[in-house]
Amino acid sequence: MNLDALYSELTLKTKAKLALVVLDGLGDLATKEQGYLTPLEAAHTPNLDRLSQDSAQGRMIPVAPGITPGSGPGHLGLFGYDPLEFQVGRGVIEALGLGVELQPGDVCARANFATLDAQGIVTDRRAGRIATEVCEKLCAKLSAKIKRIGDTQIIIKPGKEHRFVVVFRGKGLAGPLTDADPNREGFATPPVKPRDPKNLKQKKMAKLIADFYSAALPILAREKPANGFLMRGIAHQPEIPRFEERYWLKPACLAVYPMYKGLAQLVGMVKIEGPQTIKEQFERYLAEYDNYDFFFIHYKYTDKYGEDGNFAAKKKAIEDFDAALPILLKKKPDVLAITGDHSTPCALKGHSWHPQPVLLHSACSGSDKLARFTDTGANIGSLGIFPAKFLIRLMQANARMFDKFGA
Amino acid sequence: MNLDALYSELTLKTKAKLALVVLDGLGDLATKEQGYLTPLEAAHTPNLDRLSQDSAQGRMIPVAPGITPGSGPGHLGLFGYDPLEFQVGRGVIEALGLGVELQPGDVCARANFATLDAQGIVTDRRAGRIATEVCEKLCAKLSAKIKRIGDTQIIIKPGKEHRFVVVFRGKGLAGPLTDADPNREGFATPPVKPRDPKNLKQKKMAKLIADFYSAALPILAREKPANGFLMRGIAHQPEIPRFEERYWLKPACLAVYPMYKGLAQLVGMVKIEGPQTIKEQFERYLAEYDNYDFFFIHYKYTDKYGEDGNFAAKKKAIEDFDAALPILLKKKPDVLAITGDHSTPCALKGHSWHPQPVLLHSACSGSDKLARFTDTGANIGSLGIFPAKFLIRLMQANARMFDKFGA
Repeated sequence: MNLDALYSELTLKTKAKLALVVLDGLGDLATKEQGYLTPLEAAHTPNLDRLSQDSAQGRMIPVAPGITPGSGPGHLGLFGYDPLEFQVGRGVIEALGLGVELQPGDVCARANFATLDAQGIVTDRRAGRIATEVCEKLCAKLSAKIKRIGDTQIIIKPGKEHRFVVVFRGKGLAGPLTDADPNREGFATPPVKPRDPKNLKQKKMAKLIADFYSAALPILAREKPANGFLMRGIAHQPEIPRFEERYWLKPACLAVYPMYKGLAQLVGMVKIEGPQTIKEQFERYLAEYDNYDFFFIHYKYTDKYGEDGNFAAKKKAIEDFDAALPILLKKKPDVLAITGDHSTPCALKGHSWHPQPVLLHSACSGSDKLARFTDTGANIGSLGIFPAKFLIRLMQANARMFDKFGA
Repeated sequence: MNLDALYSELTLKTKAKLALVVLDGLGDLATKEQGYLTPLEAAHTPNLDRLSQDSAQGRMIPVAPGITPGSGPGHLGLFGYDPLEFQVGRGVIEALGLGVELQPGDVCARANFATLDAQGIVTDRRAGRIATEVCEKLCAKLSAKIKRIGDTQIIIKPGKEHRFVVVFRGKGLAGPLTDADPNREGFATPPVKPRDPKNLKQKKMAKLIADFYSAALPILAREKPANGFLMRGIAHQPEIPRFEERYWLKPACLAVYPMYKGLAQLVGMVKIEGPQTIKEQFERYLAEYDNYDFFFIHYKYTDKYGEDGNFAAKKKAIEDFDAALPILLKKKPDVLAITGDHSTPCALKGHSWHPQPVLLHSACSGSDKLARFTDTGANIGSLGIFPAKFLIRLMQANARMFDKFGA
């Protein structure tokens, strides 16, 4: 029997409130250089400590052993969608990151301004990393002149430096396509092709990209150095079962960064706008408590400082989080999970495959008798080391949302 | 999406050196009789201890919960091939154990000399366990008279006592077949049949076995007590994706016993011949360091003494291994895994299903803060208790051989 079908069959409607609090990139490594303590272990966290006494702990494998996830697969796993089954193309992730409000069926491409010579050979794949303001100006120019191609709406959104995204909104379009990028200088931009040559939607999309190039290149012809562009990761927003129908929970997203709002929106969460700090996010949670059943609360800074390799700052970010936590606990959700979407070890200055720690607290979580929430302590918790996609099922179970299976 | 396909898609070429060091049958049980210490725990292992401080630990399930593996599935798992998907017939394992250089498509049968009465009824399935020298003489006699059957080459290789193997090397042959063995005395030897009646290669092979019996029985007719033989585990060398193509690592095998060289050869490892002791194996590793990316180093004695139920000798074998370890560490591989292919508990005098401990050391393994490498300590390591087939993927991740999945 399909496991998701079983969960669905056993699901009961309750009045429980669930909160999934994600400290992005929380997981880390104990290394000699930092006295064999991870940032979470080195941090002063009296509020997490207190919670830990009456919680279960464990560690989660984001995708599969050894696989380092991007934010997309990391969050889809936390939302209970197998990241191998539900893949979100890079163009889509990039568009979400720039705050584009995607609609089902939209095809997105990440793009770079580039420099071409008279023969169309790419001489600089990043157009000398033009300033963000120049990028914005060029995108505005393109947007003004290319609003539609045929029956397809074109949305162009600038990013940082030479980066931008193009969204194609129309009927009968699909990705993925091959890249319009030679991947190195000295070559012409190859035309895009359907990944599946038999897919008619991909074929139509490939034609649209060619038409977009025909329309856009003349507009840029006199620009220096950005007289051309490359397009990659061309993909459509995948069809994903809606969160509310899948879990019988009305979900809200309290995130600050566009990428995470976008990922939440992909599965049908309501984006609550406004809060800019974790304190404000928790305050808003209190205010919205009665309006939703499930709250996804995202905290970015653990990942940011992990990427910087800044141990002290990551530790401090955890302490700031801990200091804000009592606000959330004023109306303690029936089920509270605190975890990361993956590890971002300071020593590696980037995402990694190491299982991230998770703390699960409810009236029926039991206690693992761990005085603190730590990476190393989580190894011996009662949740074990398990695939992240099951966290939400454990949260539902803790909310008493599953009927007994069999007699 | 298929997970192996994903690993393959994300694989990057690096210059990392990886070493998989297998103490055969390392895993063991803590029992009252031995003061609740396993041999690994009772052994004095200063070098492993030092390594442990900066390593991750865990335990591995060789095949599936409760399944006791032979050496074949045990090692295939370590090499990253699911032992349920890639099954190696007993005939093949037996031939590898006797040092036969198998070629793709070879069909192998393990055979016993047996005693038949005048009516062809099996009266002793082991021919009174004839001496190895007698077995060798009989095999030589058969080999001299049966070199080919039709276009198929016949290779006969004696084993210990009444055991031998027969290899059929020709075109269009395949196993598996049913056994030519009544499994008890008092019955005639049944003719072999294809396991899949529609498989033409198996049909041809069944005919060949019948022809082999017709040719061989007259040669043995006057022998006493070995005037007949039984054949079992008739199977062909399976098609296994080559290690180097699967992992982008050029692999070498440093094993002493033929069986392990054979298993390494099955997946396409280069067999380095010569070393007879673990010290010599490590010395040779140093000498070959630049020539390969992946070293499989096999140490037999932990399993041997486990099979004997000799706790003191197994403990001593681990101490001997530990004493040699500094040679390997002179050129420490970028990723070092030390483990077993399964457990061989002294108390059970044989292989078992208990997960074996594994130690994983690299610049990004992190530390589980375990002062020693032990069976019990490994229970609380950050690797958790996981299927052995993922070890090599974790080694690749530690070698930074995987690109990020998704954005």
